[in-house]
Amino acid sequence: MSETDPRRIVLVDYLQQGMPDERTLRMETMDLPAPGEGQVLLRTIYLSLDPYMRGRMSSARSYAAPVKPGEPIVGGAVSEVLESRHDGLAPGDIVFAMTGWQTHSVIDGRQARKLDPAAAPISYALGVLGMPGLTAYVGLLEHGRPKAGETVVVSAASGAVGQVVGQIAMLKGARAVGIAGADDKCAYVADELGFSAAVNYKAADFKEQLKAACPDGVDVYFDNVGGPVADATVALFNDFGRMPVCGRIAAYNQAPTVSGPDPLARFMGLVLTRRLAVRGFIVFDHAERIGDFERDMSGWLAEGKVRYREDVVEGFDKTVAAFQGLLGGRNRGKLIVKVSDDPTRRAA
Amino acid sequence: MSETDPRRIVLVDYLQQGMPDERTLRMETMDLPAPGEGQVLLRTIYLSLDPYMRGRMSSARSYAAPVKPGEPIVGGAVSEVLESRHDGLAPGDIVFAMTGWQTHSVIDGRQARKLDPAAAPISYALGVLGMPGLTAYVGLLEHGRPKAGETVVVSAASGAVGQVVGQIAMLKGARAVGIAGADDKCAYVADELGFSAAVNYKAADFKEQLKAACPDGVDVYFDNVGGPVADATVALFNDFGRMPVCGRIAAYNQAPTVSGPDPLARFMGLVLTRRLAVRGFIVFDHAERIGDFERDMSGWLAEGKVRYREDVVEGFDKTVAAFQGLLGGRNRGKLIVKVSDDPTRRAA
Repeated sequence: MSETDPRRIVLVDYLQQGMPDERTLRMETMDLPAPGEGQVLLRTIYLSLDPYMRGRMSSARSYAAPVKPGEPIVGGAVSEVLESRHDGLAPGDIVFAMTGWQTHSVIDGRQARKLDPAAAPISYALGVLGMPGLTAYVGLLEHGRPKAGETVVVSAASGAVGQVVGQIAMLKGARAVGIAGADDKCAYVADELGFSAAVNYKAADFKEQLKAACPDGVDVYFDNVGGPVADATVALFNDFGRMPVCGRIAAYNQAPTVSGPDPLARFMGLVLTRRLAVRGFIVFDHAERIGDFERDMSGWLAEGKVRYREDVVEGFDKTVAAFQGLLGGRNRGKLIVKVSDDPTRRAA
Repeated sequence: MSETDPRRIVLVDYLQQGMPDERTLRMETMDLPAPGEGQVLLRTIYLSLDPYMRGRMSSARSYAAPVKPGEPIVGGAVSEVLESRHDGLAPGDIVFAMTGWQTHSVIDGRQARKLDPAAAPISYALGVLGMPGLTAYVGLLEHGRPKAGETVVVSAASGAVGQVVGQIAMLKGARAVGIAGADDKCAYVADELGFSAAVNYKAADFKEQLKAACPDGVDVYFDNVGGPVADATVALFNDFGRMPVCGRIAAYNQAPTVSGPDPLARFMGLVLTRRLAVRGFIVFDHAERIGDFERDMSGWLAEGKVRYREDVVEGFDKTVAAFQGLLGGRNRGKLIVKVSDDPTRRAA
């Protein structure tokens, strides 16, 4: 297949555990039908890569049905309209849609949301102004409920969700403490975003560093990772601590095992004695907050109160390797794949 | 010491794990000072025994300070005033106070709450009209929030808290399913209290029975026990299930160990994908609901909408054995010790 042929990446077969690779994910050329009545033909510009996609490659019960073998991996993308038989869209328009891991797509025009390139970089629709930003916003404000002066800890702190969580926490008057897996990630959130502290969980004295970074204990822990990072943070909870559970990337590729004291019994002991509120949530449950989110986040970005970092990988053929890097923590900021030319940046 | 001497049961030394016995708890005679200005001399009639007391015998961090070695075990009791130098109380009055495991006590009269023997049996102040009843009320209504038609599961279902939880759930239009550790306990909640179903967790096919008892899944799980019973129930949670965490008697005497897949990772996976709300709570955090509770519960009892069963052990010298039985599940209903004659029942 040539680089200009329409291509897509499909699931070969379910993978319950382990790192997905070319045996799980196969690139193939695709047929592209002419758009029918009401449909649009799209050229993908930016493709979003997010941890939740790993769950769709497994057949285990989750909040959404898995991708079926032979079908393309799901996900959001920003695209340019090439042809339109939908009244609201014209060639050259930039849209967001859940078109999946494909270089091109033909979809119902009503499933595409038109973007305004003058309002913000179009790729932001995949991150700070899109699903990850909304995830941070509703998870922190609905379930974390930080008060001024409280300490908010967030894991995967430099990622698409984490960097936004910490900045909203600070806007609400709380102290933000980030946890990440590399010194440069920690430096980014502490020095560039202004978190009160950032701790590298790979450090030998991680627990001591985290405790030192939270001298007044932890009031909110926004959990993106689960595993030992979560355990260490939960141990520092103050009474009435809140724990929005957003992701558990530590367990996405392999089910952890344990031998010794039951970690669940210990956790529930803390839940009881410290009266913790633990709440799993999925961004799609909070559609009613989208209006508030778009108003607030657009304003914060315009005023420079929220900053945002992207990690842009060039080329659709790099998608699988980039996704492996995401699961391994190798991205720096919100990971997106630049699949084709961004017309809004041609002049720059 | 004679049976008429004032006596008390004190903590000999902290016991982190294992069943407390005479090496942990010692009966001794006590000096009884004459009541000073504002004080009252009390004779204990009914002593409450509750699982939380086990936590006070350990030095592990909890929501309340442990009992100190040499001091009597804490707890609520219903007593008769023998002498009073407090304006609001007179000899013969019946009061509730946190006087602990003692046959007599001298306390500040302001720490005693006068009971009306005509309103309800005086021992109810230790159960359905006291701390266990309030625990059931606030835990279920504030944190469980059952809706009509939903399924509410409660463990330790025939106990002081559990029997009230299920009955309030039914008053709110929910289905109540009880879990207990004996067939006669299950028969009590199903046949006498009218729960939709009751399951004996010691049955070999407990999981299958529980699943069959919850054909529409579980919406609220009021957890009094933790451990395997909680694990089996959590697995049946519907999306947006709520789990008030009230107690974990399964872990009070020994820290469970595990070898194999991490139970905490599995649990957090369910929290995330099913968007569960897990909330530890302590009854003392909800003092603002006491007025509502007393009004509602008195009304329900008067109308026969809530029924209540006590397990009365006769004799202060049976206290330690009765408490061991409580931790082992041998009580039938709310456990109290009858320490001395109940003057309100003399005429009956």
